[in-house]
Amino acid sequence: MKKLSEDTHRFYGGKIQMVPKAGVFGFNWFNVWYTPGVSKISTTIRDDNNASFDLTYRGNAVAVVSDSTRVLGDGDCTPPGGLGVMEGKAFLMKYLGGIDAVPLCIDSTNEKGEKDPDKIIEFVKMVQQSFGAINLEDISQPNCYKVLDSLREECVIPVWHDDAQGTACITLAGLINALKLANKKIEDVKITMLGAGASNTTIARIIVAAGGNPKNIIMFDSKGALTTDRKDIESDPRFYRKWEICQTTNPDKVTDIAKACENADVLIALSKPGPNTVKGEWIQSMADKSIVFTCANPVPEIYPYAAKEAGAFIVATGRGDFPNQVNNSLGFPGILKGALMVRAKKITDNMAIAAAAMQAIKDGVARIKITREEAYQKAKKDIEHARSLTGSLMENGFINSPPQSMLQDAFF
Amino acid sequence: MKKLSEDTHRFYGGKIQMVPKAGVFGFNWFNVWYTPGVSKISTTIRDDNNASFDLTYRGNAVAVVSDSTRVLGDGDCTPPGGLGVMEGKAFLMKYLGGIDAVPLCIDSTNEKGEKDPDKIIEFVKMVQQSFGAINLEDISQPNCYKVLDSLREECVIPVWHDDAQGTACITLAGLINALKLANKKIEDVKITMLGAGASNTTIARIIVAAGGNPKNIIMFDSKGALTTDRKDIESDPRFYRKWEICQTTNPDKVTDIAKACENADVLIALSKPGPNTVKGEWIQSMADKSIVFTCANPVPEIYPYAAKEAGAFIVATGRGDFPNQVNNSLGFPGILKGALMVRAKKITDNMAIAAAAMQAIKDGVARIKITREEAYQKAKKDIEHARSLTGSLMENGFINSPPQSMLQDAFF
Repeated sequence: MKKLSEDTHRFYGGKIQMVPKAGVFGFNWFNVWYTPGVSKISTTIRDDNNASFDLTYRGNAVAVVSDSTRVLGDGDCTPPGGLGVMEGKAFLMKYLGGIDAVPLCIDSTNEKGEKDPDKIIEFVKMVQQSFGAINLEDISQPNCYKVLDSLREECVIPVWHDDAQGTACITLAGLINALKLANKKIEDVKITMLGAGASNTTIARIIVAAGGNPKNIIMFDSKGALTTDRKDIESDPRFYRKWEICQTTNPDKVTDIAKACENADVLIALSKPGPNTVKGEWIQSMADKSIVFTCANPVPEIYPYAAKEAGAFIVATGRGDFPNQVNNSLGFPGILKGALMVRAKKITDNMAIAAAAMQAIKDGVARIKITREEAYQKAKKDIEHARSLTGSLMENGFINSPPQSMLQDAFF
Repeated sequence: MKKLSEDTHRFYGGKIQMVPKAGVFGFNWFNVWYTPGVSKISTTIRDDNNASFDLTYRGNAVAVVSDSTRVLGDGDCTPPGGLGVMEGKAFLMKYLGGIDAVPLCIDSTNEKGEKDPDKIIEFVKMVQQSFGAINLEDISQPNCYKVLDSLREECVIPVWHDDAQGTACITLAGLINALKLANKKIEDVKITMLGAGASNTTIARIIVAAGGNPKNIIMFDSKGALTTDRKDIESDPRFYRKWEICQTTNPDKVTDIAKACENADVLIALSKPGPNTVKGEWIQSMADKSIVFTCANPVPEIYPYAAKEAGAFIVATGRGDFPNQVNNSLGFPGILKGALMVRAKKITDNMAIAAAAMQAIKDGVARIKITREEAYQKAKKDIEHARSLTGSLMENGFINSPPQSMLQDAFF
């Protein structure tokens, strides 16, 4: 798979391209799209900045911004190292959401040689007027908390942290469905969580917002359980989101993972990639009809077959080549598309929970109002357009097939 | 024209879109383009940053960066006000150069409320690892000088200021050809220049570099002639490029435009848009076979018919709807394409003068070496691909025609 991925990326020279979406019907049209005609666009937007959503591609454009410090299971990959993932994100945004996305992998190193959240904040604030929304991605903690919380307040367009809010939104959706099948209620279940990164801490917050009881939640990071005894977290104000969890969950101060798994209904792991991170014994000790989400990428904390063998009732992972993918790619194209369609100024927690953009109008953060049906039709049209456009480029030889050997390798 | 431009921009919702350039041959392929396969791309680039040029779209990607403070003849248009022009630029980059370009209009205002060149410099340095080249655009002076000169030194990819270097390159080309027709030599001709913005000051520098005699050049800004008497320029170190011109040109300290035009061979105006900026009498007083470039946008300083009536031998403007367009759009797609193809680290003045990327290899700033023929074939293939792709999107209904009325309006 690794070799195939490298070979195919090299074959195409990446995955996305910028192309015209307006026609050229003769030489005259350059004078419409560029000087002198374009002067009217400049002055109209100058006099009313909101006109930029209608008169340029901004209304459908998203910047995928990362400092590449926590790239999909591979950690700090240096600034350009995140490009493959962010380009993939842009690819998915078009194919699944009909959105025009631009990967912006940036260097957040300050003069002291540290990764500086304020540099990311400043960068996004400078560039926000060129996009309809910002998708933050793969920024390591604790910087990610400050970056998201500051930008959500200070930007005039929605700022979405897909690892945190996106994953939380989809995990909650998966949990709600799994609980239905297990015939359990969110307010009753005991939930053990491995990993306390941006994703899992946000998942905990969203589960509680959706009715989960924080007293039934126990969360672990690499140093142990999150409790009020964790002075290391209390003393570092950058970890304020983790400290909230220390204060509200795990009242009995259980500090052992094996013990926390005993009789747990749900295990949610977004921790260290690798098949031996979650042990079969832990799953064996869980309650009847146990729900196990092991979502580390690229390799889950336990393989689905092993979790099943250990007695799990429902198993999900972050990968698309196993059953039950719980991955933000299921959510962000729709959520961002909805936010763009109503020209949302932000994406609230309520919107993430409802995972429907109609909530933006209710929350008063939409620039324009459209009906549910209008939103559905517009999104459907744009997404169908993006897919059939891709199909047409392939049929007409503008996207060639890679060599047969690579095509065959993809049937792993 | 203005109404048509607004109507058509609104019809399409801008001019560019981001689409896949790699195929999807079944659901499996998401695992190649995204997780888990993409992990190999992240780690390969992490271990060798140069791999990003091959494995992502970076090798063919240009950021068009502006702070929208001097938008094509309309001055400061606020940050989003430059989007129509920068998007147009991206449109042209694809159509004329087969390049994937991204418009980034940024807010360069600092805490004191001033437009701050250091903010632009910082922004570009942060984002440079996502692109193969940077095209600076429509940044007002004096900030543009510092921004370009700093970034050219400090970035690992070429930074091109199209208003300055691009316009200078094309103006020099136009001048060389016009001089051939007039049977005059660049080292002999007397050149009067109106306007001392980023474009014209760079034009003067490039003309001198190409053999022009600075003692035969007289340049005016809105306050008068550039001479060593101009203490206002000397005292503001941000205008160091203008001060160089004060020191090297106009030894007789001619301060009157009419007098400077008498017996001049060449008049190059990039000054105030509007048909009465250059007077017919000035042109009448010029030498035999006079060459008049009036290149302000959107309206030249004198209309071509009026300049001809006044006796000009050759007249050029910046507009595509008049004969003899002298506009950077003739140059930047090829120059940037060439720089990208050899993965240039910078674009030298020599390269601009030669206007051929083969110079990059000679100047030792190319990451890879290719022959002239290889460069030609690759550029030809990419540009033909971009145009026929656009044609195919139009034929297959992915870019619709605007209403008939708009199509007819374009035959002004």
